[in-house]
Amino acid sequence: MANVAKKVSWSGRDRDDDEPAAAGETTPLLNGAGPGTAGRTPSSRPAPHPAFLRVGQLTNVDLDDDIRELETETPTQVPSEIPHNEKLLSLKYESLDYDNCENQLFLEEERRIHHTAFRTVEIKRWVICAMIGILTGLVACFIDIVVENLAGLKFRVVKDNIDKFTEKGGLSFSLLLWATLNSSVVMAGSIIVAFIEPVAAGSGIPQIKCYLNGVKVPHVVRLKTLVIKVCGVILSVVGGLAVGKEGPMIHSGAVIAAGISQGRSTSLKRDFKIFEYFRRDTEKRDFVSAGAAAGVSAAFGAPVGGVLFSLEEGASFWNQFLTWRIFFASMISTFTLNSILSFYHGNPWDLSSPGLINFGRFDSEKLGYTFQEIPIFIFMGVVGGILGAIFNALNYWLTMFRIRYIHRPCLQVIEAMLVAAVTASVGFVMIYCSRDCQPLQEDAVTYPLQLFCADGEYNSMATAFFNTPEKSVVSLFHNPPGSYNPMTLGMFTLMYFFLACWTYGLTVSAGVFIPSLLIGAAWGRLFGISLSYLTSGAIWADPGKYALMGAAAQLGGIVRMTLSLTVIMMEATGNVTYGFPIMLALMTAKIVGDYFVEGLYDMHIQLQSVPFLHWEAPVTSHSLTAREVMSAPVTCLRRIEKVGTIVDILSDMSSNHNGFPVVESSPDTTQVAGLRGLILRSQLIVLLKHKVFVERANLSLVQRRLKLKDFRDAYPRFPPIQSIHVSQDERQCMMDLTEFMNPSPYTVPQEASLPRVFKLFRALGLRHLVVVDNHNEVVGLVTRKDLARYRLGKEGLEELSLAQT
Amino acid sequence: MANVAKKVSWSGRDRDDDEPAAAGETTPLLNGAGPGTAGRTPSSRPAPHPAFLRVGQLTNVDLDDDIRELETETPTQVPSEIPHNEKLLSLKYESLDYDNCENQLFLEEERRIHHTAFRTVEIKRWVICAMIGILTGLVACFIDIVVENLAGLKFRVVKDNIDKFTEKGGLSFSLLLWATLNSSVVMAGSIIVAFIEPVAAGSGIPQIKCYLNGVKVPHVVRLKTLVIKVCGVILSVVGGLAVGKEGPMIHSGAVIAAGISQGRSTSLKRDFKIFEYFRRDTEKRDFVSAGAAAGVSAAFGAPVGGVLFSLEEGASFWNQFLTWRIFFASMISTFTLNSILSFYHGNPWDLSSPGLINFGRFDSEKLGYTFQEIPIFIFMGVVGGILGAIFNALNYWLTMFRIRYIHRPCLQVIEAMLVAAVTASVGFVMIYCSRDCQPLQEDAVTYPLQLFCADGEYNSMATAFFNTPEKSVVSLFHNPPGSYNPMTLGMFTLMYFFLACWTYGLTVSAGVFIPSLLIGAAWGRLFGISLSYLTSGAIWADPGKYALMGAAAQLGGIVRMTLSLTVIMMEATGNVTYGFPIMLALMTAKIVGDYFVEGLYDMHIQLQSVPFLHWEAPVTSHSLTAREVMSAPVTCLRRIEKVGTIVDILSDMSSNHNGFPVVESSPDTTQVAGLRGLILRSQLIVLLKHKVFVERANLSLVQRRLKLKDFRDAYPRFPPIQSIHVSQDERQCMMDLTEFMNPSPYTVPQEASLPRVFKLFRALGLRHLVVVDNHNEVVGLVTRKDLARYRLGKEGLEELSLAQT
Repeated sequence: MANVAKKVSWSGRDRDDDEPAAAGETTPLLNGAGPGTAGRTPSSRPAPHPAFLRVGQLTNVDLDDDIRELETETPTQVPSEIPHNEKLLSLKYESLDYDNCENQLFLEEERRIHHTAFRTVEIKRWVICAMIGILTGLVACFIDIVVENLAGLKFRVVKDNIDKFTEKGGLSFSLLLWATLNSSVVMAGSIIVAFIEPVAAGSGIPQIKCYLNGVKVPHVVRLKTLVIKVCGVILSVVGGLAVGKEGPMIHSGAVIAAGISQGRSTSLKRDFKIFEYFRRDTEKRDFVSAGAAAGVSAAFGAPVGGVLFSLEEGASFWNQFLTWRIFFASMISTFTLNSILSFYHGNPWDLSSPGLINFGRFDSEKLGYTFQEIPIFIFMGVVGGILGAIFNALNYWLTMFRIRYIHRPCLQVIEAMLVAAVTASVGFVMIYCSRDCQPLQEDAVTYPLQLFCADGEYNSMATAFFNTPEKSVVSLFHNPPGSYNPMTLGMFTLMYFFLACWTYGLTVSAGVFIPSLLIGAAWGRLFGISLSYLTSGAIWADPGKYALMGAAAQLGGIVRMTLSLTVIMMEATGNVTYGFPIMLALMTAKIVGDYFVEGLYDMHIQLQSVPFLHWEAPVTSHSLTAREVMSAPVTCLRRIEKVGTIVDILSDMSSNHNGFPVVESSPDTTQVAGLRGLILRSQLIVLLKHKVFVERANLSLVQRRLKLKDFRDAYPRFPPIQSIHVSQDERQCMMDLTEFMNPSPYTVPQEASLPRVFKLFRALGLRHLVVVDNHNEVVGLVTRKDLARYRLGKEGLEELSLAQT
Repeated sequence: MANVAKKVSWSGRDRDDDEPAAAGETTPLLNGAGPGTAGRTPSSRPAPHPAFLRVGQLTNVDLDDDIRELETETPTQVPSEIPHNEKLLSLKYESLDYDNCENQLFLEEERRIHHTAFRTVEIKRWVICAMIGILTGLVACFIDIVVENLAGLKFRVVKDNIDKFTEKGGLSFSLLLWATLNSSVVMAGSIIVAFIEPVAAGSGIPQIKCYLNGVKVPHVVRLKTLVIKVCGVILSVVGGLAVGKEGPMIHSGAVIAAGISQGRSTSLKRDFKIFEYFRRDTEKRDFVSAGAAAGVSAAFGAPVGGVLFSLEEGASFWNQFLTWRIFFASMISTFTLNSILSFYHGNPWDLSSPGLINFGRFDSEKLGYTFQEIPIFIFMGVVGGILGAIFNALNYWLTMFRIRYIHRPCLQVIEAMLVAAVTASVGFVMIYCSRDCQPLQEDAVTYPLQLFCADGEYNSMATAFFNTPEKSVVSLFHNPPGSYNPMTLGMFTLMYFFLACWTYGLTVSAGVFIPSLLIGAAWGRLFGISLSYLTSGAIWADPGKYALMGAAAQLGGIVRMTLSLTVIMMEATGNVTYGFPIMLALMTAKIVGDYFVEGLYDMHIQLQSVPFLHWEAPVTSHSLTAREVMSAPVTCLRRIEKVGTIVDILSDMSSNHNGFPVVESSPDTTQVAGLRGLILRSQLIVLLKHKVFVERANLSLVQRRLKLKDFRDAYPRFPPIQSIHVSQDERQCMMDLTEFMNPSPYTVPQEASLPRVFKLFRALGLRHLVVVDNHNEVVGLVTRKDLARYRLGKEGLEELSLAQT
């Protein structure tokens, strides 16, 4: 948690060429974090062992991707202002390992399994996916039903109160009641997030994007997070914030998937002894993809959109079987949700209204579009892109402000309450000032508020605020022309835009999808009304159609998703015809928006300094080679290594590497030898814990054999090295790494260009990539941060700094 | 074209350890093909140069992936029976190179380009995709309109004739007229395919699958193929065969994409000097994916299905930008087709009926499904799977028979004519025998045939044969209950099943999608009628819904596509609700069908002995390592190599490698040295053609510089080595390969397991993967065939033989 960022410049790379190690430089950086961490630095830690095999040139960037569990979990004394720089890359994020470690244990297990046994594994995968789908659907149902009932209750109370005071005056009591109700509900939602599980804040989509990208975001797929997320989103929506419940479904699905696929809960200390084969990053990540897809599917009734979301955000290697399983989970999820909701709503087995939000069917025979309208759709895309960019820019400054000044949980709760109160007040004032009365129709409005309207009419602004945002979107899409007063729409758009922008990033669980759609639908309908007015009510100028296009353009302008969003919109409207115009609007919005500022999710990922890998290396990075990109020197281990050396290396706070190349044993410790394999910190820790070593004198003795199960049981929370006691005698023992190391790590020569290294790294989901010279000797190691550091800025290639943020 | 297959067994691998090279064994194998090839073997070819650097152990499998352009293009004297074995892998298929060769020339070019210039490249890519979409849409329109008119004309002639003879007797004249008409049209279609471009036969989907998989199928993306394909499919459909015009659209789209993206036509000898940057396999394959997607999109009005088809069949590395471009091309394609067809049909700008085939909208409010029906859908999936397996098994034996006995073009034409005549006769007899009269409704039938029915009625069997198959499918889906007599349906299903099975694999351009759908829709409707009868006409037992499920199940049982097919069916019916049951039916059909026999496309790919790489290595192949899989010995080149040696290696008919590892020059030629790079046969040929070498005495002189343009101009039809004249003096010169070779080829250690090698190979789309030992010395080379050779059979891992089929 150090607040010092070190800029690593090109020229600075070779600076420390003669110094023994960079330990002296980086240790104070780590210790300087604050009193909370300083006490834990083991003062009795031995000096770096002189026998460490360090190969390659020395630099001051030998901090590998590592997360100090201890440091991040201990609450530290937070300074009142945190300086923050967007051009940073945090070192606290660990990488997932999508590449199987094919060591001897693994190969032996795989070779023992007969090919019929693989069918059992395959069937288990399908069963897990079905369970993911069912549970995600159930959670979505739960959220939907609870929100519907609580919100209904709240609105009835407020409505009765307003109705009461409308006649006898004193509406300010109603305002007070409304604001207080909302604030207290939001307070509850904010408290559980801020104090119990901060990672449950927001929509969770950036976190899931990171996870699928291969970044291990701490706590993101824990059971506790799921519980807080579900309760939090219910409270935020009921609290009347400008939020949606759809984004959090994606996070919920991902947590469910991670939990089920492991067959145990570490938090609840329950191990069901099933699905042990899947206890590794590779398998877990595949299931999390399925969970995220099931979440999208449940939220929007869009199974294909869900699959494409998972692929667009996560998968780098397309695998047919995996995709098919993801699709299965998505389908099951929609199906479960539909079945239960159809029962709940009293039309059992009417399975045709999918998703938490259903945009309603657009009847394409009535509402086609013509060639002439295409420029109009493109223009709407431009508007959406510009409005989205403004939204994101405002939110960016707000987030910077929040990172700097509002980082105490209690401040965060107070801000959330403030937003809730302001939202209620703004709504109330606008309802009060509005004179937009519409005739009351049968079933059109759930909570019609008469206020100052004539009998048989209702206040249409009140409907916009009293309805859940989902219902408002559908009304904007489908209500017949003339249902909305342009003035009402304009005011509503303006206020809701700022409220939604202020709300995103609060310490509450909430999504930005629905607010974006609502803003877009509002201005889109306004645009449609104007168009209808200009063309004297031409038949094609249907406001509902333009509301749909506006919603797509606005959402595209904010989140900048493309393929999956088009499909989600297509599926949620149940209409294939509008695919082309929606795609055009989304694409234009993305191009225009990208010109100004990044997408909302990417922006937040960047503000968190996450080492996120994009799809391709920056186009101009061919000038860089692996030699310039890699981290060096690399701490190597010998194939038969002294236990003391291993313990020292693992305890060395200055270079918390996670992967160690294994080289051929050689009597002369300074001589560098060819690469033989790669071993992970987590594996070494398990080996040390199980005391897998023999005395130096008895090298011929066979050391204790471990099974893959021992590694899987420890996954994913490996203990820190400090918790493992190694006696002085044991330090003298030797450990044979041969059967535990991965004997065929992927390598690149030093001359390989950055795009080439990037492609290999990304396509295979690697965590460590060894750089070797012409004689297969280790010269460096490429990790996620070394690649994520390069970015295409306005003036060409930029390099981010690394810091212990 | 040798007819000798050599089984390479495990034990046989080390047999020739002491022989200098396998040339003596394999040369007769190549020369024995026939007089057409024997004359071209250069008799003056020098014996294998003793100075060839050959590393690794010797085996008799040193035939690399290569296609002898000369051999495959010369018509050889075909024996009357060709023995064929499905457990073969042909050596005649070359591999595409999806990995960029990052040599110095390439890096220099990339480094010279400023990052704004990359935007131009990106814009060009989008423009090309738009053009692909537009042209594919236009071709689809052309096919649709021509087929509609010609078929209409033909049916009018036949109908008038039948109407004339119905009253006065002598219907056998009508039969004769019908059969003759059909036969002659099919003859024309078959002749152009058999004599001009045999690769245009069939649906083209297996060929495109292979191309996207990375196999270079000769002539598959040439302009000539496109012309023949389009004419051929029109003639087959008009000729009344049991075929569809949708499959060939996918092939057409792919050819269009390959043509446009290269900015030139080699066949027409026109070079537009544009898009030169895209003249390499990597870029071309990306565009071909877009073309295939655009084809699917045009055929079924399913842009998302098109994208998923391309991804399911081709892409191994998922790239967001690429996918987005593919989607764009698909959208444009559907849009173009819709616009033009809407004009043609007289409802300009009604863009809501997409695709060549439109299944019509299923109104989900009227026709939902209930939970209880799900077991029924699964049962239909089982039936579809079994029927599909029977279809495929019958077609398998038929294809084996065809490969053995019907390989002369004239025989193929005669068979096609026979099938056309039989189809017409069967149709006629069934119409004649049928007594199924239905009341004539307004607009329900395009060509109602009264035959022996009462006035105001029409013969419903005649409709099934007189309509185009597309219209029959839609009628089966949507006609109200009671429109079809169960007996008629049963007979029709049975006859059409065998006709379609006989037709697939004929030497005509035609697809199997529509016949499969028609068979499935027919038995599905029959099933629905029975169900309605059993349940005494329950409201949910709508025959149309079951026709849809039957169609999905039957198509799934035959082609075994899953994800993309579900989405295509969803998009073509414009209904998201049926997604879940369609998926269940398809999945069941696939599982049941796979139990018996492979999918139709995979079967044909296997019968062609194509080295097709599946998604994953066989699950039980962890017992194999790179050492056992690789080809050895490898012919290596030195970094500075003698021209004579290079010419000899390239001319060596016994080992037509395409990639040569480059090792460090060393004075002692027998000493093996570390890997420095990899150079391709095509690059060496260009170098030799441009005489890029210096005299031995003047090594200090700078050799002639080539530009990337020289390589791109020669792409993709590199001349054979025989066409390049190298004088005796020139043979003594030296060639410096440093700046042309790829200096960072991907490598694996010998211990890597087959799944690991497979994953690397597949994820990066490699063509050559160098196997190195611990000192980075070359020990072997893994190519596509080495990996495709292993297959999971019924009893575990199987190994296919390699042959020059």
